[in-house]
This record gives sequence, structure tokens and C-alpha cells, in this order.
Amino acid sequence: MRQFVIIGHEVPTTPEFSLDDLAGGAGRLDVLCRCVSSALFVSHGIREEVTIDLVLDDTVTVRFEGATARNLHPDERTIAARVRQALEQREEAIGHLPAEPSPGVKVYRLGLADMLDIATESGQIVRLHQEGTPIVDANLPEQPIFVLSDHQPFTEEEQRAIGDRASTAVSVGSTEIHANHTIAVAHNYLDTEGYTRY
Amino acid sequence: MRQFVIIGHEVPTTPEFSLDDLAGGAGRLDVLCRCVSSALFVSHGIREEVTIDLVLDDTVTVRFEGATARNLHPDERTIAARVRQALEQREEAIGHLPAEPSPGVKVYRLGLADMLDIATESGQIVRLHQEGTPIVDANLPEQPIFVLSDHQPFTEEEQRAIGDRASTAVSVGSTEIHANHTIAVAHNYLDTEGYTRY
Repeated sequence: MRQFVIIGHEVPTTPEFSLDDLAGGAGRLDVLCRCVSSALFVSHGIREEVTIDLVLDDTVTVRFEGATARNLHPDERTIAARVRQALEQREEAIGHLPAEPSPGVKVYRLGLADMLDIATESGQIVRLHQEGTPIVDANLPEQPIFVLSDHQPFTEEEQRAIGDRASTAVSVGSTEIHANHTIAVAHNYLDTEGYTRY
Repeated sequence: MRQFVIIGHEVPTTPEFSLDDLAGGAGRLDVLCRCVSSALFVSHGIREEVTIDLVLDDTVTVRFEGATARNLHPDERTIAARVRQALEQREEAIGHLPAEPSPGVKVYRLGLADMLDIATESGQIVRLHQEGTPIVDANLPEQPIFVLSDHQPFTEEEQRAIGDRASTAVSVGSTEIHANHTIAVAHNYLDTEGYTRY
């Protein structure tokens, strides 16, 4: 199992946004959609062992589960449409119980700390950060939960929430790259068993 | 300098497509747009040393140059809009002379073989393929030109065109991943100097 938690800072928490303006009117929802695409998709298939949580403004979280997702496609617009559909049903989520507006897509009315607590029931948190241990030298947990921020840095509060629960901090290099590219690199590292064997 | 050449098989060569349907009515232009995004963008910036050629149906090529691109954003829709604008001006391209509809975006009325010949004036072709040498064991050229296919495999004719000009074939792992993820992995490998130093 591989989990990703992406923190969205400049994103909608209600469904009143246009699919034609994901990088503008919808804040930067495009960034999060690319993260879902990188986390879930392989060539002509989906990574069934992956879940990805989009934490929206620390109040609502949309979760995509590779194992049960249906008719999902890797383009930004399709993924954004699922996010919008999830936000339409957010009021049906109660406490730790999510609503499930479409197969493999869940919506929680929970923020970062609560979602991290849910995630750590089945894994260990790895903070992806430039100043962490190079991934090639790190001992990654068996069931990693990678926590990343969108185009903005973690806030102090987020850092605290993650730091309190993280087992390790890992870097994929000194070049600052986008979150979705970091996900692709982390997958590749795990796919190739730490680059030692193909 | 890093170059990428992406072969698009199911894509428009004329501008009559909707930005609202990139993964449907526009063939699979969404795949190529994600490749441009992966090739050119780092966090809050652009990779100035990168060019990426989108070879459309072996007849028209749209080139993006990191060094001179302006007001380009990493979302699929913005990139597709530039491709469409380029296709509107394709008739102005003559022989090896492209039209340049916007800064850093060029359109050629040339297919794969001609574009590979242009690319090899400033680099050496590396075929990215699952059965190639693992990237960690490969000696990549100083100025690599990575050639990838979209969601469809290389045709025999494309294989010949690439094989005739390629110096090496390299693999990024046995998991079949999308072309844009392969680009992210190749960049990361080069960014971290072969994973040996951060």
C-alpha cells in the first residue's frame, strides 16, 4: 500500500467552480488534479494499491482509491469533475464517516490532522522535503504515506501536524519540482526497489 | 541541454478542436500536454535548458522551448491552447523553417525523421524503452534527446527512424508508466547526477 496526502492551500471547498478555469477561478485545483493522475495511473491501468487524499483548505478532504475507482481518466478535467461531484455531497459526510459520491472517491469533512490520523492506521508518514534524507539513502517504511504540499510551502501548523506523526523526512533531490513530479519519482523509486533491481 | 521528442498518434493536426474535450474530441492531446508540463516546469519556474517536440501524426510538429517560452503555465488547458494557436499558423511554416506563433512555441510542417535530424544537431538520441539498459547503469550522453511515444507503442516505421539515429536505449523500470511520468523520472535522474549525489 502506498498513500499520498496532498495539502491544497488555494483550492475550492465548495462545488461552485468551472471546469474550464481550473488554474484560475478554481484556485490551483489543476495542481491537485495532476497529483491524482501521477499517484493513480500507470500505462493503460490504475495502481490498485494506492490512495491519495486531497486536503482542501484544511476543512474538506477528497480521497481517491485506486482499488475501487471506476471510469477515472488521467486528464485534469475528468479528475476535477470528480472533485466537484465529491464537494457537492460533502454535507453527507459526518465525522469520520465519508460520503462516497462515485466508486473509489470519498469526501470527508475533516482537515489535515484528522486525515493523517486515519492514514497512519495503515502506514507510516514520510515527509517529502528538500532537506530530508536523499531517498536513495533512506529506509522507507513498508507502507509509506507521503505527505506533500501543493505549489505553496507547508504552513507552520501543517509542519507541526506532520512532524508530530512523521517517521522520517525524505528528499528526491535539490531541484525544487512540482508535487506531481515528486509523486512520479517516489513511485519509480519504489517500483524499481530503490533503483537496485529492475 | 535536454531535449524530448514525443510522438503523438491520436492527435489533431489542425486547430478545430475544443479545449473542453482534450481527452476525447482532441484525440489524446491531454497526454502530450502533460508531457510538455513535465518537461518544462519546475517549482515556480521553467527549465530553460529544455526543448520538447510534439510530433503530431508524423506531419506537423509543435516545439516548446524553455529558454524563450513566456506566460506558459503547467495546466493542460493552457498548453493545449498554445498547441491550437500553433496549428492555426502551421501553413506559415515552410520546409525546415518553422512559424513562431508565440514566444518559445514553434510549429514545423515536418514529421518524425526530419525532427530527429534537427534535434541531433545538438544532442544524441536516447530511446526510452522498457527493455533498454536500466538508467542507473546507462552512460547517458551529455546532451540527451529522449524519444518517447504517447499512450500507443512506437510503430515499426517510427522504430526504424529512431533506431537509425539512436545511440542507446534506456529503461526507467519494468512498470509501464505514462510518458509524462517517464519524463519526470528522467529529469530527476539527471538532476541528481545519476542518483549518486544530491
